[in-house]
Amino acid sequence: MSDNAFIPQWVIERKRDGLELSEDEIRAFIAGFTSGTIPDYQMSALAMAVFFRGMSRPETAALTDAMMRSGDLLSFEGWPRPTADKHSTGGIGDKLSLMLGPLAASAGLAVPMISGRGLGITGGTLDKLESIPGYNTRLSTEEFKQVVAEVGCSIIGQTARLAPADKRLYALRDVTGTVPSIPLITASIMSKKLAEGAETLVFDVKCGRAAFMPDIEQARELARALIETGQALGRKTGALITDMNQPLGRTVGNAVEVAEAIETLKGGGPADTRLLTVELTAMMCELAGIFADRAKARRELEQRLDDGRALEVFRRMVKAQGGEPRVADDPQLLPQPGVSVEVPAPQTGFVAFIDAREIGRLALRLGAGRKATADEIDHAAGVDRLVQAGERVARGQPLMRLLAADTVRAEALLAEAAAAVRIGEAPPPERRLVLEEVEG
Amino acid sequence: MSDNAFIPQWVIERKRDGLELSEDEIRAFIAGFTSGTIPDYQMSALAMAVFFRGMSRPETAALTDAMMRSGDLLSFEGWPRPTADKHSTGGIGDKLSLMLGPLAASAGLAVPMISGRGLGITGGTLDKLESIPGYNTRLSTEEFKQVVAEVGCSIIGQTARLAPADKRLYALRDVTGTVPSIPLITASIMSKKLAEGAETLVFDVKCGRAAFMPDIEQARELARALIETGQALGRKTGALITDMNQPLGRTVGNAVEVAEAIETLKGGGPADTRLLTVELTAMMCELAGIFADRAKARRELEQRLDDGRALEVFRRMVKAQGGEPRVADDPQLLPQPGVSVEVPAPQTGFVAFIDAREIGRLALRLGAGRKATADEIDHAAGVDRLVQAGERVARGQPLMRLLAADTVRAEALLAEAAAAVRIGEAPPPERRLVLEEVEG
Repeated sequence: MSDNAFIPQWVIERKRDGLELSEDEIRAFIAGFTSGTIPDYQMSALAMAVFFRGMSRPETAALTDAMMRSGDLLSFEGWPRPTADKHSTGGIGDKLSLMLGPLAASAGLAVPMISGRGLGITGGTLDKLESIPGYNTRLSTEEFKQVVAEVGCSIIGQTARLAPADKRLYALRDVTGTVPSIPLITASIMSKKLAEGAETLVFDVKCGRAAFMPDIEQARELARALIETGQALGRKTGALITDMNQPLGRTVGNAVEVAEAIETLKGGGPADTRLLTVELTAMMCELAGIFADRAKARRELEQRLDDGRALEVFRRMVKAQGGEPRVADDPQLLPQPGVSVEVPAPQTGFVAFIDAREIGRLALRLGAGRKATADEIDHAAGVDRLVQAGERVARGQPLMRLLAADTVRAEALLAEAAAAVRIGEAPPPERRLVLEEVEG
Repeated sequence: MSDNAFIPQWVIERKRDGLELSEDEIRAFIAGFTSGTIPDYQMSALAMAVFFRGMSRPETAALTDAMMRSGDLLSFEGWPRPTADKHSTGGIGDKLSLMLGPLAASAGLAVPMISGRGLGITGGTLDKLESIPGYNTRLSTEEFKQVVAEVGCSIIGQTARLAPADKRLYALRDVTGTVPSIPLITASIMSKKLAEGAETLVFDVKCGRAAFMPDIEQARELARALIETGQALGRKTGALITDMNQPLGRTVGNAVEVAEAIETLKGGGPADTRLLTVELTAMMCELAGIFADRAKARRELEQRLDDGRALEVFRRMVKAQGGEPRVADDPQLLPQPGVSVEVPAPQTGFVAFIDAREIGRLALRLGAGRKATADEIDHAAGVDRLVQAGERVARGQPLMRLLAADTVRAEALLAEAAAAVRIGEAPPPERRLVLEEVEG
């Protein structure tokens, strides 16, 4: 073996011993992993060493770049509109992409958005969109670009050709205890987002009981890693850290979340849902140079929700992707559940707290989610008409409705559902939805 | 998935997070790895987590036990003689097994010894024995037990049926940066040794420039782990930490080391070689209850070297394993090198230090060792007539002889050979061969 030979175990050993890997080492390792010359057992050992030793920003950027280049790269260079996208680390009732994409497009951005499916208690934008009859999340790259060009926004699923190294690495991390590592999470998120070609990226890093990052310190660390890695690779980036102790909005599921998204796109919807949609889109527009400042961006975007321009983009996107556009006017066209069962409040008082984690579990057990990636989901299942913190309820009034295929399934969860809502004697302090803005 | 299901990644995650694994978890993991239901990428991730988090003694014992039970277990229960074996962590010129086995047998022990091959600069007992014409290191388990019963001692190679989990795990660790971990090293050594069935085990933990454990702290840690794990699994154990900054004896190679071993078995041989053979065998005999105390054991063993009883066991072992027993009387029957080239001393003075690492490399490049496991070795190659520290040399007198297939190969290494021996003006302080005894 020559002194210049690339020996994968030497790279593993250097990381294990706390040394910084070079860009060349990282690139060669990921190239070998993608082509199959570096076996999974070396990749998983390196991932575990990274879990313990971390990665510097240059290492994280090199890893992200190598994973991004493992497949196709979309390019929107020379397009008339600035391109932008958002990524959320995932939460309960988080239907923001459904509004943010159309809203940003209505303000002049081009939004090529590649989303994921739900797993465990966390929902996925693709599953929600697929509850719209006919909506096709599997466009070719050309079709995807076409929809973005014509409508301003398209939301599809990850293709095998975009960042395939990430797909393989994520599956491997999932079964080798190497998921919770900031540099690996960063490279996973960023490699896909960067391959989409968007110039501006905003991140919604969820923090709280039902979030991947339960505490603020870790959320901050991830937000900074995402922002700085994006900048190192030439993008404009920003992040909000937002509360995920309680669910977003009054619905958790798939069809019910689409219905709530449509309500919000019509200028209605729950206050928290509207507020966070506007905040993230405003940050995105400001970074992309669409509006001069944040306050102006907020006002302009609120107008576009209220006057129907955002909804019109949504309608056109659904149509362009083969879906039934009339759902925008008549949410009854979405899948309807077999039964809906009200959960009565066990006492009178003020809603003090709604446990997002418990509500996520509830939706999962009602059929709205997947325990394993191969599971089928019930698009009509979930929770709607959920009360929100601060609201007054009288004993026996409904706290939420459980939507399920049959009564047995729903009624078995009544006690659990009631237990997810805490009722107190006085109104709770107001919920802080945006915990922090992390600047690039 | 039920709550009781064994999920390999949960075990990896628990170790990653610094929790102690249960005996059941370790047993199930190793059983799955052995049967193939747990893939290499999960095993390597666990091994890396163990590298960082370590293992408690009960965990190490459980791992050792599980690996030991992955294959056949030899049993000598009910035998008239106590069984014992020695393990060395490997050094340069370390031919001790060749004398220790027969010597211990001559004192009344039964020694079922399973040895390894050399790799890199470290020699292997099997390669040395295979330089004896006809000697067969691949006995069946039954033949092996037969030779131990008849002769008192047998030395063979690792079979695929003894601790197969170790064989697979070691190959995996070698390419995933997970070799240097005390619990993994301990389980690897001990699983094989325990599967042999010996009741008493002594360890020669080498320490120094040419040893796997360069510093005394690590050597001590490994020695304690070996001793305590053996005791946890019901064996009598002891360990010496011995110097491996300088080679043992005056020969390094294969046939040359057998010749030196025979010299030592005849009551001659270099002082260091004789001393360490007696020390380790005496510890073994004392632990096994053959002699009342160490001093008596030393005296008895020295007698057995001097009066030919140990040599006689060696001769019978060679014969029982198909080898030419006359080598015991005429070492010229061993393979002879194509050429032998003397290395002249560049100056007059006292030999201050011989760099074991450099001598090991020299022997390797002369053809006596392997760079990769598939390499062929030249049994006649190596170094002999090596000076020892404290000896006086005059300029031009030989420091050693290089034995090789041809002159070109030997002469290319002359300068390097001379540089491995440091000559000073005054005699160096006496070498401490046994650095410490670690008690069980």
